[in-house]
Amino acid sequence: MDFQPNLEQTLRSLQAGHLSVEDALEQINGVKELGYAAIDTDRQRRNGFPEVVYGEGKTVEQIEGILQFLSEKELPILTTRVSLQKGEALSQRFPTGHYYPEARCFVLNSKKEEADPEHYIAVVTAGTSDVPVAEEAAVTAETFGHSVRRIYDVGVAGIHRLFNRLEEIQKASVIIVIAGMEGALVSVVGGLVDVPVIAVPTSIGYGSNLQGLTTLMSMLTSCASGVTVVNIDNGFGAAYSACMINRLNHNRKEN
Amino acid sequence: MDFQPNLEQTLRSLQAGHLSVEDALEQINGVKELGYAAIDTDRQRRNGFPEVVYGEGKTVEQIEGILQFLSEKELPILTTRVSLQKGEALSQRFPTGHYYPEARCFVLNSKKEEADPEHYIAVVTAGTSDVPVAEEAAVTAETFGHSVRRIYDVGVAGIHRLFNRLEEIQKASVIIVIAGMEGALVSVVGGLVDVPVIAVPTSIGYGSNLQGLTTLMSMLTSCASGVTVVNIDNGFGAAYSACMINRLNHNRKEN
Amino acid sequence: MDFQPNLEQTLRSLQAGHLSVEDALEQINGVKELGYAAIDTDRQRRNGFPEVVYGEGKTVEQIEGILQFLSEKELPILTTRVSLQKGEALSQRFPTGHYYPEARCFVLNSKKEEADPEHYIAVVTAGTSDVPVAEEAAVTAETFGHSVRRIYDVGVAGIHRLFNRLEEIQKASVIIVIAGMEGALVSVVGGLVDVPVIAVPTSIGYGSNLQGLTTLMSMLTSCASGVTVVNIDNGFGAAYSACMINRLNHNRKEN
Amino acid sequence: MDFQPNLEQTLRSLQAGHLSVEDALEQINGVKELGYAAIDTDRQRRNGFPEVVYGEGKTVEQIEGILQFLSEKELPILTTRVSLQKGEALSQRFPTGHYYPEARCFVLNSKKEEADPEHYIAVVTAGTSDVPVAEEAAVTAETFGHSVRRIYDVGVAGIHRLFNRLEEIQKASVIIVIAGMEGALVSVVGGLVDVPVIAVPTSIGYGSNLQGLTTLMSMLTSCASGVTVVNIDNGFGAAYSACMINRLNHNRKEN
Amino acid sequence: MDFQPNLEQTLRSLQAGHLSVEDALEQINGVKELGYAAIDTDRQRRNGFPEVVYGEGKTVEQIEGILQFLSEKELPILTTRVSLQKGEALSQRFPTGHYYPEARCFVLNSKKEEADPEHYIAVVTAGTSDVPVAEEAAVTAETFGHSVRRIYDVGVAGIHRLFNRLEEIQKASVIIVIAGMEGALVSVVGGLVDVPVIAVPTSIGYGSNLQGLTTLMSMLTSCASGVTVVNIDNGFGAAYSACMINRLNHNRKEN
Amino acid sequence: MDFQPNLEQTLRSLQAGHLSVEDALEQINGVKELGYAAIDTDRQRRNGFPEVVYGEGKTVEQIEGILQFLSEKELPILTTRVSLQKGEALSQRFPTGHYYPEARCFVLNSKKEEADPEHYIAVVTAGTSDVPVAEEAAVTAETFGHSVRRIYDVGVAGIHRLFNRLEEIQKASVIIVIAGMEGALVSVVGGLVDVPVIAVPTSIGYGSNLQGLTTLMSMLTSCASGVTVVNIDNGFGAAYSACMINRLNHNRKEN
Amino acid sequence: MDFQPNLEQTLRSLQAGHLSVEDALEQINGVKELGYAAIDTDRQRRNGFPEVVYGEGKTVEQIEGILQFLSEKELPILTTRVSLQKGEALSQRFPTGHYYPEARCFVLNSKKEEADPEHYIAVVTAGTSDVPVAEEAAVTAETFGHSVRRIYDVGVAGIHRLFNRLEEIQKASVIIVIAGMEGALVSVVGGLVDVPVIAVPTSIGYGSNLQGLTTLMSMLTSCASGVTVVNIDNGFGAAYSACMINRLNHNRKEN
Amino acid sequence: MDFQPNLEQTLRSLQAGHLSVEDALEQINGVKELGYAAIDTDRQRRNGFPEVVYGEGKTVEQIEGILQFLSEKELPILTTRVSLQKGEALSQRFPTGHYYPEARCFVLNSKKEEADPEHYIAVVTAGTSDVPVAEEAAVTAETFGHSVRRIYDVGVAGIHRLFNRLEEIQKASVIIVIAGMEGALVSVVGGLVDVPVIAVPTSIGYGSNLQGLTTLMSMLTSCASGVTVVNIDNGFGAAYSACMINRLNHNRKEN
Repeated sequence: MDFQPNLEQTLRSLQAGHLSVEDALEQINGVKELGYAAIDTDRQRRNGFPEVVYGEGKTVEQIEGILQFLSEKELPILTTRVSLQKGEALSQRFPTGHYYPEARCFVLNSKKEEADPEHYIAVVTAGTSDVPVAEEAAVTAETFGHSVRRIYDVGVAGIHRLFNRLEEIQKASVIIVIAGMEGALVSVVGGLVDVPVIAVPTSIGYGSNLQGLTTLMSMLTSCASGVTVVNIDNGFGAAYSACMINRLNHNRKEN
Repeated sequence: MDFQPNLEQTLRSLQAGHLSVEDALEQINGVKELGYAAIDTDRQRRNGFPEVVYGEGKTVEQIEGILQFLSEKELPILTTRVSLQKGEALSQRFPTGHYYPEARCFVLNSKKEEADPEHYIAVVTAGTSDVPVAEEAAVTAETFGHSVRRIYDVGVAGIHRLFNRLEEIQKASVIIVIAGMEGALVSVVGGLVDVPVIAVPTSIGYGSNLQGLTTLMSMLTSCASGVTVVNIDNGFGAAYSACMINRLNHNRKEN
Repeated sequence: MDFQPNLEQTLRSLQAGHLSVEDALEQINGVKELGYAAIDTDRQRRNGFPEVVYGEGKTVEQIEGILQFLSEKELPILTTRVSLQKGEALSQRFPTGHYYPEARCFVLNSKKEEADPEHYIAVVTAGTSDVPVAEEAAVTAETFGHSVRRIYDVGVAGIHRLFNRLEEIQKASVIIVIAGMEGALVSVVGGLVDVPVIAVPTSIGYGSNLQGLTTLMSMLTSCASGVTVVNIDNGFGAAYSACMINRLNHNRKEN
Repeated sequence: MDFQPNLEQTLRSLQAGHLSVEDALEQINGVKELGYAAIDTDRQRRNGFPEVVYGEGKTVEQIEGILQFLSEKELPILTTRVSLQKGEALSQRFPTGHYYPEARCFVLNSKKEEADPEHYIAVVTAGTSDVPVAEEAAVTAETFGHSVRRIYDVGVAGIHRLFNRLEEIQKASVIIVIAGMEGALVSVVGGLVDVPVIAVPTSIGYGSNLQGLTTLMSMLTSCASGVTVVNIDNGFGAAYSACMINRLNHNRKEN
Repeated sequence: MDFQPNLEQTLRSLQAGHLSVEDALEQINGVKELGYAAIDTDRQRRNGFPEVVYGEGKTVEQIEGILQFLSEKELPILTTRVSLQKGEALSQRFPTGHYYPEARCFVLNSKKEEADPEHYIAVVTAGTSDVPVAEEAAVTAETFGHSVRRIYDVGVAGIHRLFNRLEEIQKASVIIVIAGMEGALVSVVGGLVDVPVIAVPTSIGYGSNLQGLTTLMSMLTSCASGVTVVNIDNGFGAAYSACMINRLNHNRKEN
Repeated sequence: MDFQPNLEQTLRSLQAGHLSVEDALEQINGVKELGYAAIDTDRQRRNGFPEVVYGEGKTVEQIEGILQFLSEKELPILTTRVSLQKGEALSQRFPTGHYYPEARCFVLNSKKEEADPEHYIAVVTAGTSDVPVAEEAAVTAETFGHSVRRIYDVGVAGIHRLFNRLEEIQKASVIIVIAGMEGALVSVVGGLVDVPVIAVPTSIGYGSNLQGLTTLMSMLTSCASGVTVVNIDNGFGAAYSACMINRLNHNRKEN
Repeated sequence: MDFQPNLEQTLRSLQAGHLSVEDALEQINGVKELGYAAIDTDRQRRNGFPEVVYGEGKTVEQIEGILQFLSEKELPILTTRVSLQKGEALSQRFPTGHYYPEARCFVLNSKKEEADPEHYIAVVTAGTSDVPVAEEAAVTAETFGHSVRRIYDVGVAGIHRLFNRLEEIQKASVIIVIAGMEGALVSVVGGLVDVPVIAVPTSIGYGSNLQGLTTLMSMLTSCASGVTVVNIDNGFGAAYSACMINRLNHNRKEN
Repeated sequence: MDFQPNLEQTLRSLQAGHLSVEDALEQINGVKELGYAAIDTDRQRRNGFPEVVYGEGKTVEQIEGILQFLSEKELPILTTRVSLQKGEALSQRFPTGHYYPEARCFVLNSKKEEADPEHYIAVVTAGTSDVPVAEEAAVTAETFGHSVRRIYDVGVAGIHRLFNRLEEIQKASVIIVIAGMEGALVSVVGGLVDVPVIAVPTSIGYGSNLQGLTTLMSMLTSCASGVTVVNIDNGFGAAYSACMINRLNHNRKEN
């Protein structure tokens, strides 16, 4: 395994005085130590996506410190689970950034404008309560330069609403289906398309819904093939995988 | 509460010598003691349906004893959860009875021929594995004199199969939907009809299906209104409630 | 499946200038897009009941927008899970409406006065803590024009309270039994009546009650036949199904 | 704490040559080491009941060895969870003993004949499937010299069967209620009596019954006071506690 | 079953003008209807204990109304789960009553002074956090006229603390053991005594304790015989059963 | 929604006598009714993959009937969950087919030879016990014409085994990681690659493994991004989704 | 068992007037009764560690009383789960003590300075959110005189961060691994070291994490040997066991 | 991280012709590929213990192949979970090995004779049913050269049995406590000793025991400190950790 892919180059830069010993150490280790966090500086090379900041449980100051370091590169920087209050503080500190209140995301260096509209990700929800999770997914994908179509509130209780927009769903490169309660929309969509479907259970419902656990289990045992599942309310995770899949189309175009 | 509705009549019959003291006691108490079972002889008056025998965990001899007693009246007699071996033994003992191997039911005095074809119960399944539960439901309803339409294997993974037979479902008086795995068919049907839907989860599936528990929970948290649920694999219970509902139509006709 | 039942009529109205293209689209699609919600305008035709608004998680403004649109028709409009604060705001905005604080429902165009007192729904509770759920059920049924009898606090710990009112329960067309803790009332009532019983578990109890899950499971495994179950605290769902059943009596009368 | 209550006496017997060193050690330690088991020889003094042998998972030879040792004293000896095959082997080996196939118990030195019929324990079951657990309870109580009344198959689905025998239940000194499924019988009985009720959930039922877990939880959250609960199918444990309670009446008489 | 035990006497009182029709109805029905509650006025006769008021979820006004009615008789009146704020309000309204803040109980007409100190109930806890549940048990028993010994904080982590007070525990008529976490104290005590042990699991602990569910399950599967269990934190229920048992000693004395 | 895409063509064939009415009906409905099954004949068009037969719970005769019908087309036909005994019977009946005992799959018309070795799917397992699930995945992918690399027994208990083969994993188009127990391999692999990872929990382990439920939950809450999950032991489902993703590369080539 | 190891000495001190009867009683019983707590004064002798105070659920006054008593000896005194507010109050009351806000511990008579740096305990976390639990572990170990190395935020999503610090981990005497989510770090570390690993699951994560239950179960079913587990978030418990193990090295040195 | 610790030496051996390329590859990779298994040949160096073979799910032939390879070195070889039938086959194939039927282990090159009797591991069980798990632990420890004391059937239902043998337990270097049901023995032992306690829950018990899950949870929430826990029935895992701890004493001696 190749943990130090550019070791020689780093050492030469050090020798040439272009790099401090500290920075050399960071490059070789692939870690930037901030005390309260050990940033994985090697992620873009390894995973094809830069480090994403999980905002929950971090103070504004901690997030600022991490963003300060990350923003020195040109890569898109996504911070998820950012409350309105934190979002406003970050917007003041990083005026070029953008805060999305419904998605609860703060974004720097978005690559949204570079998206290829032909190969889009469909983000489909069963109800209006699922929209915040859907927006987290949509903003994530757009930040990383992917095109998104939002198709909201088409759950199976009124299935004609789904059929009205089915063509748009079927033409997507990859589909994210977000639903709470019994999650039936996933199986119905899964049975009507020929591209990968990523299902996101939400904690919408009460009683036997068990905070989304019923929806999660239900989606995993779906009768439709071609469906994979992520954690409850994990819009970010679904979009991340969707981008990895959709990137294959981007690669294709570039060829 | 009126536990002895025909007390006077019973006492007069006793006095007149038309009744033994034992039989009088049984009529007054509403219970026939067989030693291994205390048969509820008051059920038809109270619930509108005669006692149903649950065959699981009873020996052939015990079932025979109970049927012997019950068959003295003209009422339909249903025994559920009867294995093939027990069913054949009962068929020999009661030649006028009929054993249904897939439904695992043994029936005496069926009122199937008296059914009203106009007001039928639709029994709908998602897959072929759900059929045994569906047959238990169908045989139950037919035994009690209700008309049944079987609509099997129309799950949402290929939703056009459902639409091919939707009209037949929509014209039913009451609908029983039987499904395993994620149970999505219930929500889809529930959103397309204007009569009561009774959902039966089955223990079909594996892993996250949790022996039908996921399906059960999923159906209870269905996004469609007008849906009520019975226990896992409980085809009999669904049919019993469906008959209670459908009887309202029968009453209407009789008016 | 017939998604556009009156397509020709709609197109002729459009041609004749009686309809805008937008309204024609809405009629054909069966959906009114409000941005934050996609209202199912086809529900009354399909399900026999108009769309019901689930108030939880929606702002007063969103509910107002939806009610504004729905109230243009003469249909009864039910909004459930409305907090006291929202209820007062809606009462000011729609003076002809009525807010029920215990049931947490807001109602427009109630059909309560049209109810047939002969064919009533019995709403039965085990304790006083179950009353809010019972009121949600009762108000739902009354809004849709059904007669209701409230029989509260007759749980089995003092079973004579139940027998005092048993006749009233037995004469109902359909019975809703609402109970927390072990839910024993359902089995006792189920064994004494000849009409369908819909059981609603409530989250009343503590410890081993598991927020209503024990009650739910207990009701599903009830030893009485003729019982079906809805989700925890789902008074609305029970009443909706009860109305579907009771409507059969209404139909009969009209015949 | 007094672990060696008769130390002096034991030592004097040893000195006098009436006791081997091995037996003295056993008396002082309160343990008989058999290699495969360490029999608690101090139990009768400490708990008022002699050691009971749990037959499951022990070979016939091991049970024989333990009974051989225990039978040297005049105390009643109960072995529970004994299969038919083991029961027959033990009957041959100990001709004065008795095997109860339904209760799956083997008994030596039963004190059944010494029972006081006035202060009896009522053993009540909801259905016929609960009888094996009830018999384990009944045989346990009888072996230890307590009077038992068996009241079987009086579940709430036909509640008049319970009322027919209510007086017999109400006059008991302590009541054991054994039920599967939703266990509603416990709450109904608990609300009608003024003596302690011990509830035994059984693993009768399917699906949402969860192998007796639903019944267990249901009984623990019972709305009736004066009810305590033992483990699923634990007829022995219920009878053991019932005997401890009923003994207070015996003591009274002796005074 | 005798629902109207003194029917003739009631009717004669009515005829003689000593009773209003309303009061006669209440006596015959055994229920006092307060609108928000249906008080079971027949409980003392049936269960040997008067109705106990569960304070949680009731307003001060509702509790006052119920107590007002109940206090007309000379029976002890216990209200459980009363917050400090409600307790102070009730103390002002009923100056002869007493509020116990740790037990969260409000008591009228306590029979504490009538207790028989010889036949006491031992209330034993594993830790100091279990004390509130223990006090609910102790106050319940004292209110109904039973003697109580409090033996607190003797859990098995320092088992010599238990042995220091073992004699006091062994001489009790019945023992209530209250513990959180793994509940091991129950098994240890159960193995050392010859009277009934009632175990109360508490919701003390974290993580794998699962809000008391682990303790509950653990106590039910205890290796000691003679142990029965009540719901999590249910100090009242344990004391109620303990009083029923201890009353046998009282009866004895009276003989 | 277009349920009859080639309606005109079908009708013309019927008119021309090239099609029986039965076959026309089947084409229009997209369903072949076999009595015991309703085969979805429209799947290849809709999902891009032909119908897959789930062998569990079907008799050899039923499978034969379905395969007989399906094999008339040139499409690859996969039957999963086929026991050794059934597999041998099918091999005799369809000599051109192939049975894979470890994968428990029977395959007709495999497209294995058409696979593109450059764009392969890596099937990675943690242990040797996971191999049967892995083989189900591998055979599925190969049947549909995809190239597979098997990398077995590289779990994290000896993590150098993973690093020995890491390059092979990193160069895959999509990765399936199959693990039981705690499933840690998924997070480690997910952190080292830049393509989608599909995780399959297996029911390997005991005790706290909970038949794979712990592994399932663990994988869903993985700290690595880019991971989606399918049901326990669902090797087929993982491969199906992996093929959908890998097909994007195939499409690219064809361009 | 020797409950009064120094009985004679205590009695002689009493006789000589060096001890009050109260103090003699306390020494013999090994318990100091404070009313609200029964302090185990025998613990240091029995367990090798003095009593530790669990701060949650105790008032500042109660903690002060206990510390006042304990601080009379020279032993280190640890109070865990102390909120910031309580910590500040205790710091004022005991100026020689120290409050650790992140660890939420208050410490008197710390033996930190006596630690042996050669035989250290490694405290390793997967993420920054696990740090509070890690600090509870670290402060516990230091208070009892053990050396600690903190290795934080080295989870497997960026596994090179772990390898950067692996040598430091491998040279520890015992390792505590603290992780939330899927807890994969435990298995990876467990596979790379030759000393005992104690795993602490934390309640970090959401949805399928189930408040740490998934992590707990996952760690218990770890594929690596040499791993034992403590309760969720139980940093103190892990450190306590680690100190017991590490003490063996201390003993060795002393030899 | 040093994956190839002796790389140079291996390469020199290859050059000198003392090693085949295949063997060199195996030494460098630390893996022996057998096709059906990838043996971790680097374990002894990394973990201090050689690879242990988990027998469940492997054929006799597979186990033979692995043992054949492993037995070329002088290290002790432990195979766990070996059925009687497999054990006899292995005994024939490896005459110098030994099969332990109760422990279900097969052992080659045992280091039992080298054990240090002074520093022993105490293996303590609550009942006789726990003995198989205890034997797996004992045989594991003995195989790796550690001394073991077996203290069986000393559960808390007769706690004097424990005190009879307490001194032997207290003098152990590390204690393994194995118990089913409520697992109370762990807390009692944990409170009486000053060395690490490793708890093993067993699946002994029924009903609320939940196949050992209650015992597991109960042990994790134990009120005693110094206790860590392994998976249900995992005698091997407990012994493995115990050996790691006890080795510290061995090291000490060697110093």
